[in-house]
Amino acid sequence: MACTTDDDAAARDGADGEAPRLSHLDASGAARMVDVSAKPATERVAVAAGVVRMAPETLALVVAGNLKKGDVLGAARIAGIMAAKRTSDLIPLCHPLMLQSVDVAIEPDAALPGLRVTATAKLIGTTGVEMEALTAVSVACLTIYDMAKAVDRGMIVTDIRLVSKSGGRSGDWRADGA
Amino acid sequence: MACTTDDDAAARDGADGEAPRLSHLDASGAARMVDVSAKPATERVAVAAGVVRMAPETLALVVAGNLKKGDVLGAARIAGIMAAKRTSDLIPLCHPLMLQSVDVAIEPDAALPGLRVTATAKLIGTTGVEMEALTAVSVACLTIYDMAKAVDRGMIVTDIRLVSKSGGRSGDWRADGA
Amino acid sequence: MACTTDDDAAARDGADGEAPRLSHLDASGAARMVDVSAKPATERVAVAAGVVRMAPETLALVVAGNLKKGDVLGAARIAGIMAAKRTSDLIPLCHPLMLQSVDVAIEPDAALPGLRVTATAKLIGTTGVEMEALTAVSVACLTIYDMAKAVDRGMIVTDIRLVSKSGGRSGDWRADGA
Amino acid sequence: MACTTDDDAAARDGADGEAPRLSHLDASGAARMVDVSAKPATERVAVAAGVVRMAPETLALVVAGNLKKGDVLGAARIAGIMAAKRTSDLIPLCHPLMLQSVDVAIEPDAALPGLRVTATAKLIGTTGVEMEALTAVSVACLTIYDMAKAVDRGMIVTDIRLVSKSGGRSGDWRADGA
Amino acid sequence: MACTTDDDAAARDGADGEAPRLSHLDASGAARMVDVSAKPATERVAVAAGVVRMAPETLALVVAGNLKKGDVLGAARIAGIMAAKRTSDLIPLCHPLMLQSVDVAIEPDAALPGLRVTATAKLIGTTGVEMEALTAVSVACLTIYDMAKAVDRGMIVTDIRLVSKSGGRSGDWRADGA
Amino acid sequence: MACTTDDDAAARDGADGEAPRLSHLDASGAARMVDVSAKPATERVAVAAGVVRMAPETLALVVAGNLKKGDVLGAARIAGIMAAKRTSDLIPLCHPLMLQSVDVAIEPDAALPGLRVTATAKLIGTTGVEMEALTAVSVACLTIYDMAKAVDRGMIVTDIRLVSKSGGRSGDWRADGA
Repeated sequence: MACTTDDDAAARDGADGEAPRLSHLDASGAARMVDVSAKPATERVAVAAGVVRMAPETLALVVAGNLKKGDVLGAARIAGIMAAKRTSDLIPLCHPLMLQSVDVAIEPDAALPGLRVTATAKLIGTTGVEMEALTAVSVACLTIYDMAKAVDRGMIVTDIRLVSKSGGRSGDWRADGA
Repeated sequence: MACTTDDDAAARDGADGEAPRLSHLDASGAARMVDVSAKPATERVAVAAGVVRMAPETLALVVAGNLKKGDVLGAARIAGIMAAKRTSDLIPLCHPLMLQSVDVAIEPDAALPGLRVTATAKLIGTTGVEMEALTAVSVACLTIYDMAKAVDRGMIVTDIRLVSKSGGRSGDWRADGA
Repeated sequence: MACTTDDDAAARDGADGEAPRLSHLDASGAARMVDVSAKPATERVAVAAGVVRMAPETLALVVAGNLKKGDVLGAARIAGIMAAKRTSDLIPLCHPLMLQSVDVAIEPDAALPGLRVTATAKLIGTTGVEMEALTAVSVACLTIYDMAKAVDRGMIVTDIRLVSKSGGRSGDWRADGA
Repeated sequence: MACTTDDDAAARDGADGEAPRLSHLDASGAARMVDVSAKPATERVAVAAGVVRMAPETLALVVAGNLKKGDVLGAARIAGIMAAKRTSDLIPLCHPLMLQSVDVAIEPDAALPGLRVTATAKLIGTTGVEMEALTAVSVACLTIYDMAKAVDRGMIVTDIRLVSKSGGRSGDWRADGA
Repeated sequence: MACTTDDDAAARDGADGEAPRLSHLDASGAARMVDVSAKPATERVAVAAGVVRMAPETLALVVAGNLKKGDVLGAARIAGIMAAKRTSDLIPLCHPLMLQSVDVAIEPDAALPGLRVTATAKLIGTTGVEMEALTAVSVACLTIYDMAKAVDRGMIVTDIRLVSKSGGRSGDWRADGA
Repeated sequence: MACTTDDDAAARDGADGEAPRLSHLDASGAARMVDVSAKPATERVAVAAGVVRMAPETLALVVAGNLKKGDVLGAARIAGIMAAKRTSDLIPLCHPLMLQSVDVAIEPDAALPGLRVTATAKLIGTTGVEMEALTAVSVACLTIYDMAKAVDRGMIVTDIRLVSKSGGRSGDWRADGA
């Protein structure tokens, strides 16, 4: 929720009998950056995940590269971390914030075949960090695509989703089955 | 191919009987930004696509907002276009380039249910623009997620893929079924 | 005052019988980024406004576009919000800060003829947000100019001013007549 | 015209008997980044100007600071030049380009009283550089405001306009009276 | 320590009998952005210094320019301050933070011959600001190199080091002889 | 020379019997971004180098980390490459350009003890790429400092210099002894 208030909860539930509405749109439908100044600072953690599907030969090349010097996965982790710090530069209505921790993990999964990317973002603040975790995952996946596309343009970046969040007035949340 | 040379073709085919290798890794496996200075400038076009899946009620809210002032889809289009211009800031080994055109289109699809995002990038230059099109799609999808997440945290950004590319030494390419 | 301390007040009043001086210059006249570390965090709000004057036919086109899909005004609002978040990247001595709210409103005014842009920035922090509000207005105006300049290069961006500020040691302030 | 094609001319003139339209909006009114790939590279020059009005005492302080070490005007010039290079990061539909020259000049004018800012941008390319010149002027003016606001919050940034442009299919243009 | 926790102290000392390890690498050696969310906010100050060595004639030209309008040193100071604010954009594992003060001082030293650059960064926060001070020094030195290289490509940027730091759990530190 | 014209040569030699002057300062001493629009595009290559001196135990830790997953050196290489692409954002009077290749190599040197960093930048264009190579080296060194500073705050980033350049009107250049 780097980018919406805990009014999110109200918005989701249609509090007070009103119809639910998108918290980023004002009464006239215009985009706005939600005011978070009245919210207390609490610890917020968000975990997001995504997948890059690829041909088995591509996965073998990436993993082999990794066994040497780890640069494909290393570069993707670095790119994901740096992107998380720039989320508010990319997503128009996200609040700037001082991320206190970002971690990006990438695991090969021969069953896909492909790579599973997970990002965890943490903040003590007045906004959530879902978008930071999702941005880290997305850019790490794009970096993998970039570095391997010469051998496999048919890779697909997919299943980017929020796994869980904690903290904030709207409370904890877990994706179904997560 | 904003981010690899047309050696891509060689890399993919394992030219000269060598095993294929990732063009972003040098002989020792270290990451490098591929040299494109010897390549001729030609017209490059890349089309990428992706999807945001959401609950039908969420889609109805987004579409209704759109009917008023269009800000969710309008903001997502603007965010995608701006992100395409910053691709080389986000993806470590992408070349900076002077995009000559970017277009982002977003269509609701009740059958998903969700939104289909398509981006087209164009350049007359020495590098391809696949990563610019993919980055535009990814950030447009993340912006939709951000603006609607207060009512639906379970949305999924998925099926981000290259649809087609043209230009460059490696020639034209279309995704299967595209 | 994202960019000066409340010494501003002292500076303005020539406290202690000293001549007033610019708080961004040190004793030798060199530029410096003012130290705000000893200041308490309070709620700061700043409102800024500006105008884009244009030919009446241009205004009609912009408004008509708006009636369709709102993209000129929507894009200008988004651009203003995003620029506010990047104020410290643009203005050399501005402090980085975590804006808690930015709102950009744009209204046509046939009497100008042209568009009136207003931005409101809010922060709980140790620095003011005047520059953030002024930057949002400026970039929203430039975006309008950009999108309409093909039909009217003679547009003028004008009357960009601070309307009011509240919070901080120097207290509240309103422009004359505002 | 960093941000529109020479279709601008067509757009302005309502070519082919069509009504004029904004070149940044497509047929459905959605924002797009205009395709400039078919345009020839020619030399483009744009000159923009603007003014910061201030109290006479403020102007005296700025000028006196300048006599010492020049930092207010020096910082504003640097900020304007750096902002010109980032125009496509700030203005959503501007094309990224490789500015070949930017110059920012700032002159005190006791008659305003205030400072007159002029910026000249130059490019050999397929897009104009009006927005780069206007952005340089705007950010230079905002920097002056920032550095002097502690003594004068009532300053006004005003009369930001294109003075002249040359090059491109739409030909040369001068503001009335310029 | 904008970029490591006070675990730094533990890491340095090999707490608990463990071998010292780099706090930016996790147990498997992968890069991570250290979690600072459990740390208390305290005042952090870091001072860094560096030198640009140049031919005596180059130094004379720079100093003479300075006597006129100060732009080489003025531009280098501004560049250093602006770079300090962007440290977390440049250094992959640095935390974004809200610098409360940055000061860059540049002094000619005929004995080098060359220029001595010193930067002081300050923050009340959970991370140190060593990297911000070092980044300010580095970019100020590079700016001097850039502005004088037409007359002296043999200049050397050298002796960039942390002079002192205070605050944080690892306590105060001074370079030998500083 | 990403940031000066080949007038550099004239400036260095005091063409036409004039005294040499800094090409970034105009006749009145004010900073300006040099006009490169009249220059022909040629291939430019610049090589820069630098060193991070550290305690032998620190070097051993970095190298050991490298043996595992390479993240310190891998992150520094990525950071250097990304910084080279952002040179014109950091150095006020540098021209934006489209780097066609950047390579960063890092080698341990037990005799220092420390790490040697070398960067090679390449462009076909109208400006040199010395600043891009020097910026890549500087930021790679700062990244090494950041990642190892928890165990060794006394590291020194030093001897950052241009090794060679080729292309452009001022011709080739090599550092003494290089």
